[in-house]
Amino acid sequence: NDAFEVAGRSFGSRLILGTGGATSLSTLEQALALSGTELTTVSIRHYSAGGSASVYELLQRHGIAALPNTAGCFTARDAILTAHLAREALETNWVKLEVIADEHTLLPDPLELFAAAEQLVADGFEVFAYTNDDPALAARLQDAGVAAVMPAGAPIGSGLGILNPHNIATIVSRATVPVILDAGVGTASDAAKAMELGCDAVLLASAVTRAHNAPLMAAAMRDAVRAGRAARLAGRIPVRDTALASSPGEGMMQALIGDFS
Amino acid sequence: NDAFEVAGRSFGSRLILGTGGATSLSTLEQALALSGTELTTVSIRHYSAGGSASVYELLQRHGIAALPNTAGCFTARDAILTAHLAREALETNWVKLEVIADEHTLLPDPLELFAAAEQLVADGFEVFAYTNDDPALAARLQDAGVAAVMPAGAPIGSGLGILNPHNIATIVSRATVPVILDAGVGTASDAAKAMELGCDAVLLASAVTRAHNAPLMAAAMRDAVRAGRAARLAGRIPVRDTALASSPGEGMMQALIGDFS
Amino acid sequence: NDAFEVAGRSFGSRLILGTGGATSLSTLEQALALSGTELTTVSIRHYSAGGSASVYELLQRHGIAALPNTAGCFTARDAILTAHLAREALETNWVKLEVIADEHTLLPDPLELFAAAEQLVADGFEVFAYTNDDPALAARLQDAGVAAVMPAGAPIGSGLGILNPHNIATIVSRATVPVILDAGVGTASDAAKAMELGCDAVLLASAVTRAHNAPLMAAAMRDAVRAGRAARLAGRIPVRDTALASSPGEGMMQALIGDFS
Amino acid sequence: NDAFEVAGRSFGSRLILGTGGATSLSTLEQALALSGTELTTVSIRHYSAGGSASVYELLQRHGIAALPNTAGCFTARDAILTAHLAREALETNWVKLEVIADEHTLLPDPLELFAAAEQLVADGFEVFAYTNDDPALAARLQDAGVAAVMPAGAPIGSGLGILNPHNIATIVSRATVPVILDAGVGTASDAAKAMELGCDAVLLASAVTRAHNAPLMAAAMRDAVRAGRAARLAGRIPVRDTALASSPGEGMMQALIGDFS
Repeated sequence: NDAFEVAGRSFGSRLILGTGGATSLSTLEQALALSGTELTTVSIRHYSAGGSASVYELLQRHGIAALPNTAGCFTARDAILTAHLAREALETNWVKLEVIADEHTLLPDPLELFAAAEQLVADGFEVFAYTNDDPALAARLQDAGVAAVMPAGAPIGSGLGILNPHNIATIVSRATVPVILDAGVGTASDAAKAMELGCDAVLLASAVTRAHNAPLMAAAMRDAVRAGRAARLAGRIPVRDTALASSPGEGMMQALIGDFS
Repeated sequence: NDAFEVAGRSFGSRLILGTGGATSLSTLEQALALSGTELTTVSIRHYSAGGSASVYELLQRHGIAALPNTAGCFTARDAILTAHLAREALETNWVKLEVIADEHTLLPDPLELFAAAEQLVADGFEVFAYTNDDPALAARLQDAGVAAVMPAGAPIGSGLGILNPHNIATIVSRATVPVILDAGVGTASDAAKAMELGCDAVLLASAVTRAHNAPLMAAAMRDAVRAGRAARLAGRIPVRDTALASSPGEGMMQALIGDFS
Repeated sequence: NDAFEVAGRSFGSRLILGTGGATSLSTLEQALALSGTELTTVSIRHYSAGGSASVYELLQRHGIAALPNTAGCFTARDAILTAHLAREALETNWVKLEVIADEHTLLPDPLELFAAAEQLVADGFEVFAYTNDDPALAARLQDAGVAAVMPAGAPIGSGLGILNPHNIATIVSRATVPVILDAGVGTASDAAKAMELGCDAVLLASAVTRAHNAPLMAAAMRDAVRAGRAARLAGRIPVRDTALASSPGEGMMQALIGDFS
Repeated sequence: NDAFEVAGRSFGSRLILGTGGATSLSTLEQALALSGTELTTVSIRHYSAGGSASVYELLQRHGIAALPNTAGCFTARDAILTAHLAREALETNWVKLEVIADEHTLLPDPLELFAAAEQLVADGFEVFAYTNDDPALAARLQDAGVAAVMPAGAPIGSGLGILNPHNIATIVSRATVPVILDAGVGTASDAAKAMELGCDAVLLASAVTRAHNAPLMAAAMRDAVRAGRAARLAGRIPVRDTALASSPGEGMMQALIGDFS
C-alpha cells in the first residue's frame, strides 16, 4: 500500500541496488534476491562492450527492471548519445543520467548535466538525474521535466553517508518529483537516515557489492530502507533538549546546530 | 543462529521495548507484537502501586519476558530495596538497575549506581546496569559482576540519538558482558547506528510509545535493529576520502573528525 | 608577512565584513573598526537607490576597500547589467557576483551564475563568484577565469556554520584561485573552522551585524579568523583514536565518520 | 574587565597551557609567551623526580602560576599522597586532581576521583577536578566542594575536540563553580567552541606542544579562546533554518539533531 511511484510505474521496494563492484555473478544474485529490489541500474557502456550481458540476463530471470545509466560520460554530448544507444538496445526510454566532472571526484558536472537533461526530456526520455545536493539545481532540473532527482549523499564509493542532510531535506521539502538518494551510502543507518529525511527511495551499489559479506549487507539495506520509511511515516518524537530548559543564556539547540557545522 | 545471549538466557530479538509512555493498552499490544520484542522492562514502583498489572498480564499472554527496573530511585538504598521487592513479587533475580541523579536530567548517578550494583551482585541478582556512556565506569561495573552494561545514548526521552558514538564504541571494544544501548534513541537510524557500533541490543520506549503512530514505529525499530546488526556482521566498506588524496596538507580525516567535535 | 593576496591586491586581514543588517551607522563603524577588516561588500542596488551613500563614505574614511555585489539579481542578465553599473559608479572592476535562485533559500543559481561569470570575465571584471559548495562548479568557475571562488558554508543568514566541511576541503585542495568562505557563519568557531579547512579568507555580515553586541562579535571574528589561519599554518596534531587500537573489528574512524553523515 | 576568577584568584587569560609534550625548553618558552597564559599545570611526579625543575624555573621567570597535578595516579590513595607532596614542595594548596582509570584510555576513574576529591577538600585543598563529561558527576563534585570542574572534551592527547557538546553545555548550565574544558582540544576552533558553550577557561597541552609549529599554535589558541569568549558574551545570532519554513512535515531541526547523534 506504500508503493514507490516513479515515471508512471510502481515498485514494492524503495531500495534500488546498483550492480557495479560485484565480485561474482552468484554473489550478486544472492544479494539481489536478499535485497528485495525491483529496480537496478546497468551501465550502457559496459553493456555495449559485452560486459553486462550475463548481468542483464540475471535481472530478467528475477523480474528486476533495469535502469540504464550513462556512467563514464564526461560531456552532455556523450551522455545524450549513450542514452539514445540505451533506448535502442534495451527498448526503454528510462535513463539514469550521469555526466561526471572528473575521474577523481566522480562528482556530476552541473552545467553538462542540465544541458543533457533538457535535451533528453525533449527527446522523450524519462530522465533520472544524478546530481549534487544543491537545492537550486534540483529545482531547475525538475522544472526542466526530469522524472526524478537523485542527489548524492557523498561522492560515489566514498561510504561517507549523507554529508549535508540539510540540503537533502531542503530538496525534499520542495520536490515535485520523486527524490532518490544516490551515492555515498556506506552502511545501513545511512540508508535509514535518507528515508527519514523524506527521500522516496535509495540507490546504492558498492555499500553492498563491496561489503565483506555482500548478501548479508543486502538484507541489512532492505531492512534499513523499510525502517527509515516506516519511521518517516510513523512521525518520530520531537527532540527534547533537557539542557535547554535549564540554560538561562544561549539555547542548546543553537549550540548543537552550531556544532553540527 | 544469531541469538542475543544475556545472563544465561537467549533471545531471538535484539530489540528490548520499554512500556513507559504508552497511550493505551491496545496500542501498546500492537506495538509489542509488531516490534518482535521478547523482553521488556516494567517499573516495579509502578507495578507495586497497581499501575502495571494489566501490562504485566499482557506481556505474559504474549510470552514476553519482563525485566523489572528500579525507575524512580534516587539512592543506592532505595534501588536495592526496590530490587528485592521485585524479586519477591515477580519471582526473578533479573533487575535493570536505575539510580537517577535528579528529576531534571534523569541521568544516572555514577556513585549510587556503583554502590547498588556491588550490593545487588552480592545478593545474587543479575544486574542490568543503566549507566552513563563513560568507558571507565562501564569497566568498573563489569568488573563488579553485572550481567550487562546499558549506556545511555542521550538523556531519557530526549530523542537526541547517540551523542557520543566514540564512547559507545570504546565501551564495546572492551566489553566482557553484553552492551545494551539504553535511552536517547529517537528514530530508526539511531537504533541501527547503535547496532553498527557493536552494541548487542537496544532498549527504547518513548521513541515508540510516543511516536505519532506507535505500532508503525515499532515495526520500524524492529527492522532498524535487524539492519544495524546485519550491517555490523556483514562488514561495511571502508570510508574512502576522495578529498584526502588530492590534499597536500592536512588530511581530510582530521578535518572531518575535528568537525565532529 | 601572511598577506591575503587576491586579484592583484594584498590585504592584512583575512576577514571580509559585509555591511548588511547593521542597525545603525555608529554601531557599524565600531564593528568595522574592531573587526580589523580592510575589505567589505556593498550592495550596488542599495547604493544606486541612495541607501548606502553614508556607508560608502564611512568606508572611505576608514580606508576600507569596497567590493560591490550584485545582491538582488535573479538572472545572469540582471547581474551583468548591475556589475557594469557598479564599475561606472564606483570606478572598480571588482565585483562580487551573486545570482540568486529564489528569495526563499537565497542559494545561488549555478547555471545563471556560470553564464554571468563567463561574460563578466570577458568584459574585464575581476569576478568574486558566490557559489554553492560544489567542487565541480568551483572548478568550472576557476577555469572560466574568476578571481576568487566564494562557496557558501550554509544559506545566507542561517547561522548554520559549515554544513559540508568535506566539500569545502575538496574545493581548497584543488583551488587555483583564492577560496573565500561566504555565508553561513554563525559564531566565532565557524570562522576559525573555515580557515582551518584551508580557506584563504572569510566573508560574513549578519553574524556580526545582527549579534546582540555587534562590535564585540566583530572583535571575536577578527580573533577567530586569525586563530584559524595560524592553526592551519602551525600544523595541528593528528587525531589519535584511542578506541581504534583496542577494537578488533571495524575501525572507530569509520564509525565516527559514518556518524558524521 | 573580564577576568577569570577561580579559587579566590583572578587571571587575565582564560587559556591554561599544560607543559607536557614540549620538545625543548626554548620552544616551550616561546609557546608560553605567545599563548599569554598566566597559569599552567606541572606534574608533581615528574617534578619530584627532578624532571620539571627547569620548567618550574621558567614559569617563575615569566610570572606564570603553577597548578600541580597528580598525573600518573591510578587510585585515590596515590592521588591524595601526591597532592600532599605537592603542597609541601610547591607551597600551594591548589591541586589538579587526576585519577586515571587505565593507561590505555587515560580516562578518569569516577569512583576514585570522587573519593579523592572529598578527602582533599577536607584536607584544605583547592581541588581542580579532572573528570569525564558527565553532568551528574560534575554536580556531585561541586557539591563536595571542589574549586573547579574540568570535564574532558575527549581523551587526553586524542585531538578529537569536544565529543559531546550537549554534556558540556549541561554542565555549564548547572555550574556553581568555574568549568574548565580539559583534554581533547586538537585545534583552534575546538578551543573557541568550548568557550562558546560557556566554559570559563580551556586547558590544553599537546595541541600546542606537539603541533608542527608549537609557538604559532600557542598564538592560535590565545586568539581562539579570546574569540570564543567574546562570541559567548556578544550573543550569537539564532540559527535560522530556511528548510524548516517550507517543510510541511517534520522539522529540519529534528532532522539535523537526529543526524547529530
